[in-house]
Amino acid sequence: MRLVVLGSSGEFPLLASRERLELVSRVRRALPRDRLLLAGSGCESTRATIELTGSTAEAGADAALVVTPCYYRGAMSSAALVQHYTEVAEASPIPVVLYSVPANTNLELPLEAVLTLAQHPNIIGIKDSGGDITRIGLIVHKTQQEDFQVLSGSAGFLLASYAVGASGGICALANVLGAPLCQLEHLCRQGRWQEARELQQRLIEPNAAVTRRFGIPGLKKAMDLFGYYGGPCRAPLGPLSPAEVEELRGIFSSNGWL
Amino acid sequence: MRLVVLGSSGEFPLLASRERLELVSRVRRALPRDRLLLAGSGCESTRATIELTGSTAEAGADAALVVTPCYYRGAMSSAALVQHYTEVAEASPIPVVLYSVPANTNLELPLEAVLTLAQHPNIIGIKDSGGDITRIGLIVHKTQQEDFQVLSGSAGFLLASYAVGASGGICALANVLGAPLCQLEHLCRQGRWQEARELQQRLIEPNAAVTRRFGIPGLKKAMDLFGYYGGPCRAPLGPLSPAEVEELRGIFSSNGWL
Amino acid sequence: MRLVVLGSSGEFPLLASRERLELVSRVRRALPRDRLLLAGSGCESTRATIELTGSTAEAGADAALVVTPCYYRGAMSSAALVQHYTEVAEASPIPVVLYSVPANTNLELPLEAVLTLAQHPNIIGIKDSGGDITRIGLIVHKTQQEDFQVLSGSAGFLLASYAVGASGGICALANVLGAPLCQLEHLCRQGRWQEARELQQRLIEPNAAVTRRFGIPGLKKAMDLFGYYGGPCRAPLGPLSPAEVEELRGIFSSNGWL
Amino acid sequence: MRLVVLGSSGEFPLLASRERLELVSRVRRALPRDRLLLAGSGCESTRATIELTGSTAEAGADAALVVTPCYYRGAMSSAALVQHYTEVAEASPIPVVLYSVPANTNLELPLEAVLTLAQHPNIIGIKDSGGDITRIGLIVHKTQQEDFQVLSGSAGFLLASYAVGASGGICALANVLGAPLCQLEHLCRQGRWQEARELQQRLIEPNAAVTRRFGIPGLKKAMDLFGYYGGPCRAPLGPLSPAEVEELRGIFSSNGWL
Repeated sequence: MRLVVLGSSGEFPLLASRERLELVSRVRRALPRDRLLLAGSGCESTRATIELTGSTAEAGADAALVVTPCYYRGAMSSAALVQHYTEVAEASPIPVVLYSVPANTNLELPLEAVLTLAQHPNIIGIKDSGGDITRIGLIVHKTQQEDFQVLSGSAGFLLASYAVGASGGICALANVLGAPLCQLEHLCRQGRWQEARELQQRLIEPNAAVTRRFGIPGLKKAMDLFGYYGGPCRAPLGPLSPAEVEELRGIFSSNGWL
Repeated sequence: MRLVVLGSSGEFPLLASRERLELVSRVRRALPRDRLLLAGSGCESTRATIELTGSTAEAGADAALVVTPCYYRGAMSSAALVQHYTEVAEASPIPVVLYSVPANTNLELPLEAVLTLAQHPNIIGIKDSGGDITRIGLIVHKTQQEDFQVLSGSAGFLLASYAVGASGGICALANVLGAPLCQLEHLCRQGRWQEARELQQRLIEPNAAVTRRFGIPGLKKAMDLFGYYGGPCRAPLGPLSPAEVEELRGIFSSNGWL
Repeated sequence: MRLVVLGSSGEFPLLASRERLELVSRVRRALPRDRLLLAGSGCESTRATIELTGSTAEAGADAALVVTPCYYRGAMSSAALVQHYTEVAEASPIPVVLYSVPANTNLELPLEAVLTLAQHPNIIGIKDSGGDITRIGLIVHKTQQEDFQVLSGSAGFLLASYAVGASGGICALANVLGAPLCQLEHLCRQGRWQEARELQQRLIEPNAAVTRRFGIPGLKKAMDLFGYYGGPCRAPLGPLSPAEVEELRGIFSSNGWL
Repeated sequence: MRLVVLGSSGEFPLLASRERLELVSRVRRALPRDRLLLAGSGCESTRATIELTGSTAEAGADAALVVTPCYYRGAMSSAALVQHYTEVAEASPIPVVLYSVPANTNLELPLEAVLTLAQHPNIIGIKDSGGDITRIGLIVHKTQQEDFQVLSGSAGFLLASYAVGASGGICALANVLGAPLCQLEHLCRQGRWQEARELQQRLIEPNAAVTRRFGIPGLKKAMDLFGYYGGPCRAPLGPLSPAEVEELRGIFSSNGWL
């Protein structure tokens, strides 16, 4: 099992640098040494990404999850992104995981960039949150000679990702339904697809509720509902309305989770 | 096995009504009676769709594949689309298959409309070409009480569609690689997922080549390359350039099909 | 003054060929001979567009408004569209007006295609409904050596279009507020920009109401409100709800038109 | 005349906080006291935006240009954005200018949010870079009771913006062609629209070259071509290729600027 901090659901873009590093070091201290800790460290500039990745490593992260820069998306050609990630990977003391999340960045890391970067010894995988299963299958296919992990970026298409050959997933929903997601992986690895399918189907609506539908406020409230500590969001993210909380609860309960 | 005529790859929008009907009746005559024949019959107006669906049935189609109207997409609310398909299904002498193909129509038949329409006795399934595997899994999940077939609209995500519970597929690539696609279905149904995956992976690039990359001109030329008759496209679709033909050939051959 | 029939607001895609031609011939008979009559005649295939343009000319249209084909938008390169329009213009007995309306077609006729086509002697202008005023200004600039009219496709940016050099407009709102739109043109031509601006500002919300907001059902109902005959829409377009009618009425009255 | 630093073309997202503040204080010292200095200070979190806006004011900025947060665009409802900007404006010692730039953020500050925020005493205007001239006209119309400046965010639609009532513009192209842009404003204010139009038309392609076409690398190189210091971009932005430089030069020279 591995933990990820400072991903999109971890409100990475809303935290100051010192908060980011404190988060990494606190989690590292709380975590057994053999548990892998990934931490988000992607910034808009190559320079800042390199700096933060270095500090993140010092703070105890085992690998860095580096989101695509996106503000200047018009200039983010495949060549520019290859250059960016190559410089980051060269400078990073820890392995780099590519992170493509078009719902947030409006930018998909192009396939050809992924295939080029997969050959770099310090780039060990991709978290692909776009949900294009054809693309995920093709990345698996074209990187099978490399030591490169393709990770599903969402619980909504986790079974399908395993079916086409993905190595695993990094899923917001795991903050709430960690055990069922581990069970889903287990079933897929054992080839028990029928059981896996039934489980996957019950996860789609809860997953949408804590991502696309209600976002991070929904995820945090769901954690509260399950007895974890979700807590408040940082502005401009705000809390759910009472009606939204009821809708959220209904989605988990109608799928048999509450 | 079933045949589909007058789908997107069949240049449906480029044919006159009389050509459409002649196509259906000629294929019907050439086809053993026990082979199902689906034919596209969706038009922009409800009235025209009803008329053409009726004539298509008379010409010998067993079911109608009805694409979403799209020119007035701003007005195509879920309610409007439910109304449209309900009227068509009520009037149609043959069963109706919904057809959602956002790459062409820029409109995805909304999930809630699909779920409502799935309950209609004369609507028997959906061809979903959008490629959103999470949605496909959810449609399967939410229609399992109905007699409703979810069909993958492309060979690129066919294995993933089977994995999440789809009934089958309607794939442009079947015009070229029919046998491997049948084999892929066979492997999935038998639970031989590892073999299925290897086969699926070799189909992704050829599939992209005859759809997104080179479109219908690419599909027709690929048919020529495989010894079938592809023939010319109707304008404004034009032929591939010689360089594109070579690229097309290379995509099939590098995946072991030529 | 000129009239346009069979444009997007004229429900062109919802009418059968015989209805289209009857509409043209009836309007032609009702219209003084010196009033120009434009009629929509664009179809998905080049062949059908040529046929319908010919029949439309015979039925009495003075010019043809030819929308971009769009179903196979992935294949509609600039070269393909230049070829399509050139063939139509060569075959047409009446002048051709290009028609780019991305809200409906999800396709903008590329600038380079417009500039090439503007040189054809039988292509006399473009109706540009995209609302990109920079592009409209550039088209005016780059076609000033040609006898080519750039027409604003909507009343929302009519003054701005005149400001950057457009020749006129073809506006859905003219079905309801014809006189004010003529007055707006008059003010712009006379350089009375302050008065024009005040008038333009009062037209933006009513225009949005009969286009993007409520579409053709809104336009027809607004015609009813102003004492014209709007009448029902053809399905799948449906009528406004009573609440929407009140909102529509409010938009016209708060801007001083009712 | 006013200066803007730390806008999109100023590579704001690529600079560290200390660099941002140093830039503001250096420009402030170099600038006569009566020249207005605007500085970008928008961050993803409300908290960071408030902090940076405060420091920016201390460093000498007269007003803050606050871009919309965008990473969590799915959650950036009109209400969330109103809340964000209101908190920033309440806390800011200097006036706030809203900044909507969908090409970078994939988010347009909704009209209703703009109209609400325009009533805040410490929000004095909007830089609208979206280019939707209908919207710009409507914002002018609906805010005329307020002391609120609507600023065109690009030189491509500057004349059109003046025509519909905008107060001015903040244009990347002003870094290269400052004098012609001031002349364009002058002509519009004097009602010399014919001359203004001719000038505007010659600015469209150069403007596109330093924005959409070649981005900041194009803008910097154009500054070099005109004898200013453009200098290198910060990675992941890279330099133009020699062929691109020639294309850039050609665009300026064919429009009579080089």
